[in-house]
Amino acid sequence: MAYTYEAPLDDMRFVIEHVLRAPASWAACAPFAELDADTGAAVLEEAARFASGVLQPLNASGDLQGCTWAADGSVRTPAGWPAAYRAFVEAGWPALPCDPAWGGQGLPLLLDAALREMLSACNHGWTMYPDLLHGAYETIKAHGSDELRARYLEDIATGRTLAAMALTEPQAGSDLGALCTRAEPQADGSLRVSGSKIFISGGEHDRTGQIVHLVLCREPGMPAGSKGLSLALVPKWLPDGTRNGMHCDGIEKKMGIKGSATCAMRYEAATGWRVGEPGRGLAAMFLMMNSARLHVGLQGLGHQEMAAQNALRYALEREQFRTPIVQQPAVRHALLRLRVSCEAQRVIAYRAALAIDEAHHHADAAVRVRQGRTAALLTPIVKALCTHQGFHGAAAAQQVWGGYGYVHEYGIEQTVRDARIAMVYEGTNEIQAIDLVQRKLLADGGAALAELRHEWLAEAEACAAFPALQDLAAALREQVALAQQGFEALQVAATHDAERPLCVAGDVLAGLSHTLMAWAFAASARAAADHPDPALRQRKTEQMRYGVQWLLPEAAVHWQRASNPALALPALH
Amino acid sequence: MAYTYEAPLDDMRFVIEHVLRAPASWAACAPFAELDADTGAAVLEEAARFASGVLQPLNASGDLQGCTWAADGSVRTPAGWPAAYRAFVEAGWPALPCDPAWGGQGLPLLLDAALREMLSACNHGWTMYPDLLHGAYETIKAHGSDELRARYLEDIATGRTLAAMALTEPQAGSDLGALCTRAEPQADGSLRVSGSKIFISGGEHDRTGQIVHLVLCREPGMPAGSKGLSLALVPKWLPDGTRNGMHCDGIEKKMGIKGSATCAMRYEAATGWRVGEPGRGLAAMFLMMNSARLHVGLQGLGHQEMAAQNALRYALEREQFRTPIVQQPAVRHALLRLRVSCEAQRVIAYRAALAIDEAHHHADAAVRVRQGRTAALLTPIVKALCTHQGFHGAAAAQQVWGGYGYVHEYGIEQTVRDARIAMVYEGTNEIQAIDLVQRKLLADGGAALAELRHEWLAEAEACAAFPALQDLAAALREQVALAQQGFEALQVAATHDAERPLCVAGDVLAGLSHTLMAWAFAASARAAADHPDPALRQRKTEQMRYGVQWLLPEAAVHWQRASNPALALPALH
Repeated sequence: MAYTYEAPLDDMRFVIEHVLRAPASWAACAPFAELDADTGAAVLEEAARFASGVLQPLNASGDLQGCTWAADGSVRTPAGWPAAYRAFVEAGWPALPCDPAWGGQGLPLLLDAALREMLSACNHGWTMYPDLLHGAYETIKAHGSDELRARYLEDIATGRTLAAMALTEPQAGSDLGALCTRAEPQADGSLRVSGSKIFISGGEHDRTGQIVHLVLCREPGMPAGSKGLSLALVPKWLPDGTRNGMHCDGIEKKMGIKGSATCAMRYEAATGWRVGEPGRGLAAMFLMMNSARLHVGLQGLGHQEMAAQNALRYALEREQFRTPIVQQPAVRHALLRLRVSCEAQRVIAYRAALAIDEAHHHADAAVRVRQGRTAALLTPIVKALCTHQGFHGAAAAQQVWGGYGYVHEYGIEQTVRDARIAMVYEGTNEIQAIDLVQRKLLADGGAALAELRHEWLAEAEACAAFPALQDLAAALREQVALAQQGFEALQVAATHDAERPLCVAGDVLAGLSHTLMAWAFAASARAAADHPDPALRQRKTEQMRYGVQWLLPEAAVHWQRASNPALALPALH
Repeated sequence: MAYTYEAPLDDMRFVIEHVLRAPASWAACAPFAELDADTGAAVLEEAARFASGVLQPLNASGDLQGCTWAADGSVRTPAGWPAAYRAFVEAGWPALPCDPAWGGQGLPLLLDAALREMLSACNHGWTMYPDLLHGAYETIKAHGSDELRARYLEDIATGRTLAAMALTEPQAGSDLGALCTRAEPQADGSLRVSGSKIFISGGEHDRTGQIVHLVLCREPGMPAGSKGLSLALVPKWLPDGTRNGMHCDGIEKKMGIKGSATCAMRYEAATGWRVGEPGRGLAAMFLMMNSARLHVGLQGLGHQEMAAQNALRYALEREQFRTPIVQQPAVRHALLRLRVSCEAQRVIAYRAALAIDEAHHHADAAVRVRQGRTAALLTPIVKALCTHQGFHGAAAAQQVWGGYGYVHEYGIEQTVRDARIAMVYEGTNEIQAIDLVQRKLLADGGAALAELRHEWLAEAEACAAFPALQDLAAALREQVALAQQGFEALQVAATHDAERPLCVAGDVLAGLSHTLMAWAFAASARAAADHPDPALRQRKTEQMRYGVQWLLPEAAVHWQRASNPALALPALH
């Protein structure tokens, strides 16, 4: 049976319009004031046609072909991929959430989130190239000089020029402060950049003529560590039409996303221009971190949806013991767990996108500040939760196919391989957990968490108004209480032992993921209870209740571990 | 840093001699009466040299090359693999646990288990070919005619002839009763076999001239379903030197174990001979099921060990933030979890091998019967637990490498891909859970479980004799109590709802896996407490305590779900 994709447009609309009630929020954001639910839905329908119709058919072939690198440093992407990219640019998709002043469509990040979920589901490798655009756009827009913005920003917003982020060096992965690419300031204000970078997604390719690299580098006299880094914009082609001093020395042979060229780059006295202040390069890049990490979380969500819908289709059709295997309890468990995780995580990820939109554009300044905090807190959870489940959910789905799941032509094994990288890049999931615990929970004394708790308890109350949903409301309240106790215990433990929060960061992230899942189950069931379609009402309620009963109990274990300072973490030799 | 393998010989000896005290058991088994601990250890040292020295260097290259199939039906395995196989046969490894009467070495399955763990760790794909020998040997030895045994058995025992198991057909995977390969009895007592099979590991290759297929097929007039199946021995070359009517129509492109040829086979009026009675083919094959499933569990164990030791080596060497990453709490958690799981599962898997040895050879008939029941109960748990953790443990280890973990040359991504299949073949892990709950727990009213409980409680008492190990003894008693309550609740639930055990089979298997882990933690710590080496004593105790504190709490969630008949499992449409 073919591995195909049908965009979950009804589920997306359900989350956007009924669970999150985004159109009401749009009305309060000046740039989206004219946008209504139907227009948003029409955009997503069009995106779905592109994703299923153009990208998905190129996914398996792209995996088999991979990219090819030639000794002259050029890189060829799989057959059909460059043409699909041209179609993508012509349709205006890269510019969806960008400012109309720079050629963008000015639509909410929330709609862009749904677009990205679809693209990643259908062809993660292909999507890597435009996925980097938005971060580069935000960084240059906020920190680039007028000249750089005039020269590059519209081409990047519209995808006519692609971008690459050049951060990692062999000795500097999570620890960017250790990097040693040099940048010598020149008399004309430019920088001369020299050094080697690895793992540069889309560092070289055949999609666009121009490729703009944002290179993290160190200027002379700057301090060691992460405070001494500058960010340089280094284009493949210089304004005078000559080739810049940058070369792709090879591409990696990877587990998955094989059509995405992961390049080793060498910069030899390449000409670049500073983006932001000298020594403030990392700060400039952190600006785009929230949306970049959200995008990676959306990749995980896309993988889950792809795995879930294909596994269900297979299980409905495949017969063993003279009945479709969907009737076997183990298969039902696997499919329900996938479906429920995916739908709840869509609510959570889209909630984060909405928070970013409101943080940027809401008319009320207090709302902007509060939603900014919420976005910051949700982002590491969305990244780690959705990508963890993207990989593990796909691997669980693979089991539904039996032996066929291990064979390339059935599709799911590629999803498993592709999904694995999202747990690593844009900060490993372990880094997300540290970010959550140190910067988003402990640093503000729990203020951002308290705001979310308020939202969760309001949802519990709204949900409890429906007599049939008392159990979901109670489960949410219980999870909120667990989270609160766990957080308080963590605060106490942190005062006694500074390493303790790091020792339990993974459990704290998993614990709060369950709180958010409980919130999403309640919010979805509550929204469904108000929905006119009785079949949807029954299905959502049954499935969210499955989530409450079978998925939430694990939370207590995470909070137990997070709260018990007596648990020892021995050293290893 | 190179991905290499150092056989954990000290850990293996620790389990065999100190935890399980196997040499005392060998003394009570006539065929092993002359075997002592040092001889056993010498065999394993020799095996380790072969695995690390010959097989491991062929692992990554074999993955890159894969197998090639030609239109004439021939299959070529990766460079160096056939020569390694000849060396393996010449050294006598295939025959390790076989009867000396048929050219075997007559050594315990327990030592063969350690050998297989090492082979799979170093090169899972390569090991697939000889892995099938032992099952074929057991089946033909027990059910073959004198003529078949005289003709094939010694060649199979010694590995001069390789074997394939031809069970699966496109419509018949877990449901073997649905298969339709036909076998027409001939006047001379032979069978004429026609039909198509898929997923036949080693159905065709360049390792040995002769390949013997054991083909599950249906004779005319036999009932539909699994009771009407016969087993036919179908050799590639007939006794008169002519080629039999069997063809390899292609090989699968798989996620991993790419050097293992997974063949689509076509039998066209192929000549074969019945093994066992007509219509009793499945029963003949089930004989070898315990050891075949144990072997797959050992593959998972090998993957864990390979991942754990390479991740530790990498974490000790790789520096970020100017310190080796092994000091980061998240990395320590990942490494400890891997190490502790691996060591506990080695105890459990080797315990199952010892049970099979005693079931076959112990002088006391009552012990033979009891150990047979224990082996039957442990087997599905070992298969599912070790392979689940083989894949998930390898994927967790992969995280330690950061981005490098996604790149082929660092080795771990291949381990993840290879490990995935073991959760599927020889009965999916979901089938193991059903086997455990229906046939091994409920069918005998809990008698086999009661015998194991007795053993667990005795271990808790032995462990409690050491004042420093009270917590491990208490944790074991708590886990045994949870398992007992959970089992009793399951018995009650099964009387009210026949589907209930199937709905919670996965949780029951996970719950009992934790009981066994708790037993292995206590038994290892107790054995270490008696050990002369103080460094080993401290390390094992610390690590087993880590297991108790961080891994066991999840058990309660599994038993909760397994015991609560109110949890609903909705249908899917």
